[in-house]
Amino acid sequence: MNTSAEDVRASAVRARQAAGQLAPLSRAAKDAALLGMAAALLDRSAEILAANALDTAAARAAGTSAALVDRLTLTPERIEAMADGLRQVAALEDPVGEVVRGRVLPNGLELRQVRVPLGVIGIIYEARPNVTVDAAGLCIKSGNAVLLRGSASALNSNRVLVDVLREAAVAAGLPADGVQLVPGADHDSVKHLMRLRGLVDVLIPRGGAGLIRAVVEESTVPVIETGVGNCHVYVDVDADVDTALAITLNAKTQKVSVCNSAETLLVHAGIAAEFLPRVLTALRDAGVTVHGDETVRAVDPSAVPVTDEDWATEYLSLDMAVGVVDSLDQALDHIRRWSSGHTEAIVTRSLAASRRFVASCDSAAVMVNASTRFTDGERFGMGAEIGISTQKLHARGPMGLPELTSTTWVGIGDGHLV
Amino acid sequence: MNTSAEDVRASAVRARQAAGQLAPLSRAAKDAALLGMAAALLDRSAEILAANALDTAAARAAGTSAALVDRLTLTPERIEAMADGLRQVAALEDPVGEVVRGRVLPNGLELRQVRVPLGVIGIIYEARPNVTVDAAGLCIKSGNAVLLRGSASALNSNRVLVDVLREAAVAAGLPADGVQLVPGADHDSVKHLMRLRGLVDVLIPRGGAGLIRAVVEESTVPVIETGVGNCHVYVDVDADVDTALAITLNAKTQKVSVCNSAETLLVHAGIAAEFLPRVLTALRDAGVTVHGDETVRAVDPSAVPVTDEDWATEYLSLDMAVGVVDSLDQALDHIRRWSSGHTEAIVTRSLAASRRFVASCDSAAVMVNASTRFTDGERFGMGAEIGISTQKLHARGPMGLPELTSTTWVGIGDGHLV
Repeated sequence: MNTSAEDVRASAVRARQAAGQLAPLSRAAKDAALLGMAAALLDRSAEILAANALDTAAARAAGTSAALVDRLTLTPERIEAMADGLRQVAALEDPVGEVVRGRVLPNGLELRQVRVPLGVIGIIYEARPNVTVDAAGLCIKSGNAVLLRGSASALNSNRVLVDVLREAAVAAGLPADGVQLVPGADHDSVKHLMRLRGLVDVLIPRGGAGLIRAVVEESTVPVIETGVGNCHVYVDVDADVDTALAITLNAKTQKVSVCNSAETLLVHAGIAAEFLPRVLTALRDAGVTVHGDETVRAVDPSAVPVTDEDWATEYLSLDMAVGVVDSLDQALDHIRRWSSGHTEAIVTRSLAASRRFVASCDSAAVMVNASTRFTDGERFGMGAEIGISTQKLHARGPMGLPELTSTTWVGIGDGHLV
Repeated sequence: MNTSAEDVRASAVRARQAAGQLAPLSRAAKDAALLGMAAALLDRSAEILAANALDTAAARAAGTSAALVDRLTLTPERIEAMADGLRQVAALEDPVGEVVRGRVLPNGLELRQVRVPLGVIGIIYEARPNVTVDAAGLCIKSGNAVLLRGSASALNSNRVLVDVLREAAVAAGLPADGVQLVPGADHDSVKHLMRLRGLVDVLIPRGGAGLIRAVVEESTVPVIETGVGNCHVYVDVDADVDTALAITLNAKTQKVSVCNSAETLLVHAGIAAEFLPRVLTALRDAGVTVHGDETVRAVDPSAVPVTDEDWATEYLSLDMAVGVVDSLDQALDHIRRWSSGHTEAIVTRSLAASRRFVASCDSAAVMVNASTRFTDGERFGMGAEIGISTQKLHARGPMGLPELTSTTWVGIGDGHLV
């Protein structure tokens, strides 16, 4: 039977009530709950592992790929890592109550802009059960209620995890309904969730491009797009070749399954003769399949011919599209056309080229002589992140705790009239 | 003939190209264009007034209300005010390039978060032609291209205004297509505009609740909701009665057609015997029709019985819903249920009550012993505003220039790898 709109709405109404109770909580109360949740995950790890074993067995029986089963799998170490994540979130500053701006107006009205929780945050995500715990931790710390809609394939795991988190929340005096699994794991449950504008303040889809596009298209609840990363490395005519080589390899191969890994390499024609043979050999040695344009294939005939689809693709694999451009402008045109707006990197010794690249890339992050892999909340020193926004409204780039808040203007007077 | 999707898309594509040219412009270049636009409005005011006369004549012939015809009407003074608005925007700080945060990471990577333009902003609005000029000025100053979709009733006025603005932009070296009127004035032109996700970065509907709801429901382009203001004044048991009286009258009657005027007055039962007779007399003397609950009607039998529809209504007229509540909590419950999330005010001498009210109202602005009418970009010292956001994502409350920007993370290293 399909999930009913009423069930999803009822869940959101309970979340809204819980949000009202969470918003005024002190940091101490929220941190105590997070630490309690961390302890409870460890206490009940046998139960969590048993539920997870059901999910992984079903996934294997359904012929799911080994990579996906791995994402789904929990181990004692992974449970310890989730607990540790909650402890780290507890150690972060509370964003709620921070005064963003403030002044006394000429008429004496005291005015300040203060961070407040968003309210109810919906997260739609795929197989990884650790997202359940990470997202709940960040939302609770920022005073929000969270509605979690994980993958059907992780349902047994998520049910136990959410049960553990809710029990620990209640033990610490927080409302149970601050953390909820959205009823149902069919498509209808997502569909109903996306229509709850007014009850749900924001939806954050985490996962593949298809999931994100579907949510963006259909949701009336405001959406923050995350994570699709078709990232570029541009090697300028003035690049240091060794630096360019190291950054290209790091950006492509250090970890391939992540959104901040590079998918396309663009090389200035003026440095191609020197750089291309070295980088193509190094990529091949690292096991990378190169999809190259004509110049690239003239240097390395084993490269696959590159297509428009390659330029558009976030491989998330040991593949890389490689092309030669005649100028910085042509590189920028290419990036503007094909980029998903996540992270682009330039390798150059020219200050002018770096300034023009930074000013002209329309992406969440731009790196100069640094790997695209740096775009990450923890590496930026923001603590844990709930995702990397590739849209321009509200938050762009890694989203930590402040990005899970809104603001209110507070004016205090003594009978001030207009 | 209905406006075609292709025409609207072509206009957005031109805007996107113009946005790429506007983004890197210096403040000096943008200010010169704004001052040129101001001068051009005055130079060509005869032409503007002639076009406007066609619109107002057509509106009168169609039996449009006097209030609406007044909103539509331009005069030499109003053109001077529009030009003055552009000069004021020129005098404001350029938000683009502002470093929001920055640090050197422990590994030596220089990291900073910098304001950048949003890109292409669509504004959908009703009759007032001054919005055409105000919105264009704010968008150009913040480095954005703007797509203006005004009311069909102002089409002649808007065509000439946009022509004047574009000519002045070009004379100052800016791209003409940074300011465009969306093709067509039928519903289809809005419908097509709302589907241009990827080409248009944000839509800002300005106008009545119906317009805003329709855009929010149908748009795949991210929307910022503005302006519906069902604002409340709560008179606490600890209020100073004279202050409460002055604030209530100011919030209700100083200007009734604006979103920050008050629509509902809630009075604590403990002060009702003293306060109600005075406020009801004063409201009646000011020409306000009171929609009251039973307690109110016992004091003033001329009050109309209040209905749930009254509690929900943004009157924008000399009407006010008035009710008595037993406690601060009951006032907060009422506000949470009926408010549009714009501005609420409490009148009290109690620090504890003011703190609880501020912490518990989920609105863009909360006033303590001050009129709801203060929620306004200019009064907040932000300069001109493009609207008042009543949503929580991206911007909440008055939106000035910084709210028309996004940010980019810029990382500068010397071969930094992960």
